Amino acid sequence: MEDFTQFLVVFSMAAAVGVLSTVFVLTWVLHFKEGLGWDGGLAEFNWHPVLMVIGFVSLQGLAIIIYRLPWTWHCSKLTMKFIHAGLNLLAFILAVVSVVAVFDFHNGAKIPNMYSLHSWLGIGCTKSMFSLTQLVLGVGMYLIPLAPISWKVAFMPFHVYSGLFLFTSVIAVSLMGITEKLIFGLKDPKYKDSPPEAIFVNFLGVFLVVFGVLILWIATRTSWKRAVLFFFLLDNDTICVYLLYIC
Amino acid sequence: MEDFTQFLVVFSMAAAVGVLSTVFVLTWVLHFKEGLGWDGGLAEFNWHPVLMVIGFVSLQGLAIIIYRLPWTWHCSKLTMKFIHAGLNLLAFILAVVSVVAVFDFHNGAKIPNMYSLHSWLGIGCTKSMFSLTQLVLGVGMYLIPLAPISWKVAFMPFHVYSGLFLFTSVIAVSLMGITEKLIFGLKDPKYKDSPPEAIFVNFLGVFLVVFGVLILWIATRTSWKRAVLFFFLLDNDTICVYLLYIC
Repeated sequence: MEDFTQFLVVFSMAAAVGVLSTVFVLTWVLHFKEGLGWDGGLAEFNWHPVLMVIGFVSLQGLAIIIYRLPWTWHCSKLTMKFIHAGLNLLAFILAVVSVVAVFDFHNGAKIPNMYSLHSWLGIGCTKSMFSLTQLVLGVGMYLIPLAPISWKVAFMPFHVYSGLFLFTSVIAVSLMGITEKLIFGLKDPKYKDSPPEAIFVNFLGVFLVVFGVLILWIATRTSWKRAVLFFFLLDNDTICVYLLYIC
Repeated sequence: MEDFTQFLVVFSMAAAVGVLSTVFVLTWVLHFKEGLGWDGGLAEFNWHPVLMVIGFVSLQGLAIIIYRLPWTWHCSKLTMKFIHAGLNLLAFILAVVSVVAVFDFHNGAKIPNMYSLHSWLGIGCTKSMFSLTQLVLGVGMYLIPLAPISWKVAFMPFHVYSGLFLFTSVIAVSLMGITEKLIFGLKDPKYKDSPPEAIFVNFLGVFLVVFGVLILWIATRTSWKRAVLFFFLLDNDTICVYLLYIC
């Protein structure tokens, strides 16, 4: 791998910010808010930010760059595909549970569902597109060995682009959710009075952005792609070596 | 250019959605809100979403893909650099004016400045980074003919990445701003009651996301890069032709 030290620095920073985001979201709900529960009240709602940050942000971020980790390059491509798909599936399941928590809370508190731009983009766009383009088409195209190679090659740019777009959207939608929750959840003092909770959670938002910047930087460096060496024996004395970067 | 028809379709869609976003934000402030003015009140605040959508979203989006337009490929690279930098500078000036409008309104209404995540990411991150990395370093490195070629080459990945990141951030921050304004601005009926203004402005948010998706798709297709043909006369009968994609 080219620039291994630079990769290690960026990857370590991403891992640190990812862990920090999880610590911050847990501290928010356990220390500043009502904790976690499954009672149809605010404690159930709190699963929403926690599972989103752990699943749709952190796990999806890891799934995106899993092929870039040089320590996995001795594993077969099929194994890596299963890890990539498994992490994304786990992220999706956590996201679905987190949405159920919000719907339960809304129904109990007589708050309408799906009225905000946060919910439109979160469910209507991000989750539907995620389930369609990434899970269904991704698994159908690259895990089930039926699709012809030409289809796989033609679909790859869309698979990569929609994956990066959906990851970015999840972070944007999370920032909108944080904004909503701070406005609705802080009454006395209000959000505009900058109580400690407001400052703390603003930092959570900044960490999510930094995490996104680092993951997308790793994902878009061509020189950090998973590399495979091909050896061809041309004659008794000559070995031809190809270094191939693959997605 | 490869896939010119596909490029034309995507570019036309981006242009249409960009114009639609501008029409929607103008309709929002002129039809649903207090109109536009410079009186320290809500009419002055309304310049904020209008100038942001026109400047930091639409003009910056155009600046990003200006090198991709095949109709400009007969222009010199220096001319294109000036257009790229000029559009970005204009976007930045409009953004600064739009922020002055918000500060004026906040000061008049005794609302604190810079308390929200929207403002932290908007000013602390997006605008500061934009002015530093894109305008100062971008102009210093690529417009003023002093920097050595090796510096230009080494800095280009950061220039491109931070440009795309900042454009994406601007859209994310706009979505947060729309969320804030709909919560604070709609009182009876409230945002959660989904009055026509809420639905209308939610669509504005969706258009901004679609605009971002299309612009970033155009910007990240290698085969749509500005292409230049180099001709070398090898001998009397042989002309060597190089097709070079440049940023």
